[in-house]
Amino acid sequence: MRGAVMYAPGDVRVEERSDPRIVKPTDAIIRLSATCVCGSDLWPYRGVENLPWPAPMGHEYAGIVEEVGSEVTTIKPGQFVIGSFFASDNTCEICQAGYQSSCIHRHGVGQEGAQAERLRLPLADGTLVATPEVPADDLVPSLLAASDVLGTGWFGAVAAEVGPGKTVAVVGDGAVGLLAVLAAKQLGAERIIAMSRHEPRQQLAREYGATDIVEERGDDGVAKIKELTNGLGAHSVVEAVGTQESMMQAIRATRAGGHVGYVGVAHGVELPGEELFFSHVHLYGGPAPVRRFLPELIDLIWNRQIDPGKVFDLELPLEQAAAGYEAMDKRQAIKVLLRP
Amino acid sequence: MRGAVMYAPGDVRVEERSDPRIVKPTDAIIRLSATCVCGSDLWPYRGVENLPWPAPMGHEYAGIVEEVGSEVTTIKPGQFVIGSFFASDNTCEICQAGYQSSCIHRHGVGQEGAQAERLRLPLADGTLVATPEVPADDLVPSLLAASDVLGTGWFGAVAAEVGPGKTVAVVGDGAVGLLAVLAAKQLGAERIIAMSRHEPRQQLAREYGATDIVEERGDDGVAKIKELTNGLGAHSVVEAVGTQESMMQAIRATRAGGHVGYVGVAHGVELPGEELFFSHVHLYGGPAPVRRFLPELIDLIWNRQIDPGKVFDLELPLEQAAAGYEAMDKRQAIKVLLRP
Repeated sequence: MRGAVMYAPGDVRVEERSDPRIVKPTDAIIRLSATCVCGSDLWPYRGVENLPWPAPMGHEYAGIVEEVGSEVTTIKPGQFVIGSFFASDNTCEICQAGYQSSCIHRHGVGQEGAQAERLRLPLADGTLVATPEVPADDLVPSLLAASDVLGTGWFGAVAAEVGPGKTVAVVGDGAVGLLAVLAAKQLGAERIIAMSRHEPRQQLAREYGATDIVEERGDDGVAKIKELTNGLGAHSVVEAVGTQESMMQAIRATRAGGHVGYVGVAHGVELPGEELFFSHVHLYGGPAPVRRFLPELIDLIWNRQIDPGKVFDLELPLEQAAAGYEAMDKRQAIKVLLRP
Repeated sequence: MRGAVMYAPGDVRVEERSDPRIVKPTDAIIRLSATCVCGSDLWPYRGVENLPWPAPMGHEYAGIVEEVGSEVTTIKPGQFVIGSFFASDNTCEICQAGYQSSCIHRHGVGQEGAQAERLRLPLADGTLVATPEVPADDLVPSLLAASDVLGTGWFGAVAAEVGPGKTVAVVGDGAVGLLAVLAAKQLGAERIIAMSRHEPRQQLAREYGATDIVEERGDDGVAKIKELTNGLGAHSVVEAVGTQESMMQAIRATRAGGHVGYVGVAHGVELPGEELFFSHVHLYGGPAPVRRFLPELIDLIWNRQIDPGKVFDLELPLEQAAAGYEAMDKRQAIKVLLRP
């Protein structure tokens, strides 16, 4: 089959990879209807993170089940399924508490390489959620978004304890940040401040429910948020970048007693303990337990109540994955959908 | 009046200080029945923290109201009152949300110097809570404990989301850590692991409700907690020290999805963002909003349901404050009560 492989920073190639096969009786093989490039794929692309080169890429997926192992009971060939970037058993104590991305048997889907024609999913029963039927084609981008960016933005909002009556600020205007805006709206936030300086992203943020746009960053951005919140800061801030600056911006923009939900994979971030102590801010985040939210998110998409697929502003054939990486790296696209 | 003043690290003197007087119409003056030395007073005593020397010391207090300003309406002369180390209006948005130690009008009582005969309390109506009557003398240590160490230990347990069915670990066997054990018991924890290597403190921890004692520290302590929790870590961990080692011990001893409540004032602590991200641990703490808990804590003490005053294992006249600091610094006493 064809699949994307990163050979070095900046060097993505689509080439022949061996077809995945059932390795364990709990596995499933799916044929991908769509996959995409993630903001986190840009860390190795930009040389910030090392991979065991050459590395198959991709961890977002939606598609049709082709084959299941002998112990798979709930997932069946022919179903259209979505899963998270971490496979999970969904039965261990950690999963049952709702933290499936820290499942004691978790398996990173990234290792399997989802930017491909086919994909092996371990722990299929615990990982995959089937749609009611095979979806109309125009629903596929939104369902694919649920696999990571929507689930991650949603988790950021939940981690930041977004709710009715609250003022929410979102740091980061990538797909995750934009979908955190959508999540905040769905979760009943009263006011949603999107921090963005890019006009097309501001527009989508507004469409998803942002009531205010703040273009300033760093200390200026914090000052602006305080100005908009009676000097106190936002109740809930979602951090969707993962740099030192963005984390500090999120913490400082949050009022005492408020909540930061951070979902940008932290790179080289060091949090000053004393400042955090006196900030009185709740800090929670990490790899989103997307599996927890999938049934609800699929339902919202299926009923066309939300349209997270709009974050895909560029669609390419899988063969042009390299161009997709480049477009995202140069911020020419918010998020790139790849059609195998 | 007489009061303790720190002139330099290790140099505490009790000397004549000017009597406090009503400065603002919202002030009250109290005559202290008891005050004490705090673990946080040891930071400047040990030279880790600088003060504007010479500095009046002390921020824990319980005593009789002598005089109130013209705008004080709920607090009256003759009442026995307890308050937090931060004066707060208890009416602003932050106070109303339960974070009185970040009140927009907060005032550090430490600046006033509570290790003294008398004390000025700003924002008396918002800050002070009166007992039903003037208490029996044997209740005074416990009521004094509510002013900080009990309220702080309690907040640590609340911040760590301690509750029924949960396994709780407490890092730190000072007065705050021991009272976090007491709080965990009151809040219904199923299992309470106290981390301590000091026999008398272990004994008090057991008396307060600890079901297990772990003597190991650092990585070994973490391994021991994992061993006791099916490899997962505790649901709730209270950090009551404030060093890099103790913070990392707390974070690493917590299971994915679990909660760290940190109340040790962080000194020189830098939290590695990436490790925190993948730990999936909720982090919350800071200066305890003791005022939130005071009515409930006073009630528990008044009805003799809890006995937090046991943490005072040395009682000295105020004049011997220097000896009190020394005993705590050398860990010869858990906590020293001073009688003015």
